[in-house]
Amino acid sequence: MFVLMFYDVGEKRVNKVLKAARKYLTWIQNSVLEGELTPAALEALKVDVKKIIDDEYDSVLFYIWRTERYMAREAMGVKRGAVDSFI
Amino acid sequence: MFVLMFYDVGEKRVNKVLKAARKYLTWIQNSVLEGELTPAALEALKVDVKKIIDDEYDSVLFYIWRTERYMAREAMGVKRGAVDSFI
Repeated sequence: MFVLMFYDVGEKRVNKVLKAARKYLTWIQNSVLEGELTPAALEALKVDVKKIIDDEYDSVLFYIWRTERYMAREAMGVKRGAVDSFI
Repeated sequence: MFVLMFYDVGEKRVNKVLKAARKYLTWIQNSVLEGELTPAALEALKVDVKKIIDDEYDSVLFYIWRTERYMAREAMGVKRGAVDSFI
């Protein structure tokens, strides 16, 4: 599965969430990671994130596709993270 | 086409980018918008954003799919924007 993750969390937890997420996904841009995950890996990532976030304050979203096919990426301005696949 | 847009721009430009993007897409979360766009609308959005951003500093990414089908969304923690379609 192709997974996009974005997080909007309290400053105290940003580094912890990013560190946990980077075990599974590639950092693309501020608060944005992407990558191919098995269903089991996605569940493990969610368990790790769940331990870190404050459910009353933080927000984490996952967009999940069966495949990266049929997708295009486009970047404007500066390229930050691993965005070599961007046109 | 289903489009996801995320931006990481200088503070002085955040509101302008958001205002421009909201003419085309739905705000989901801090720096994240989504929606269905025709190719022409996507081009118009990019033209509008191009006028605002600082190419040397700001970063805007678009993920584009032919269709929203085969996609799932999952949210953890607080739901912010129009995320009623999240499970």
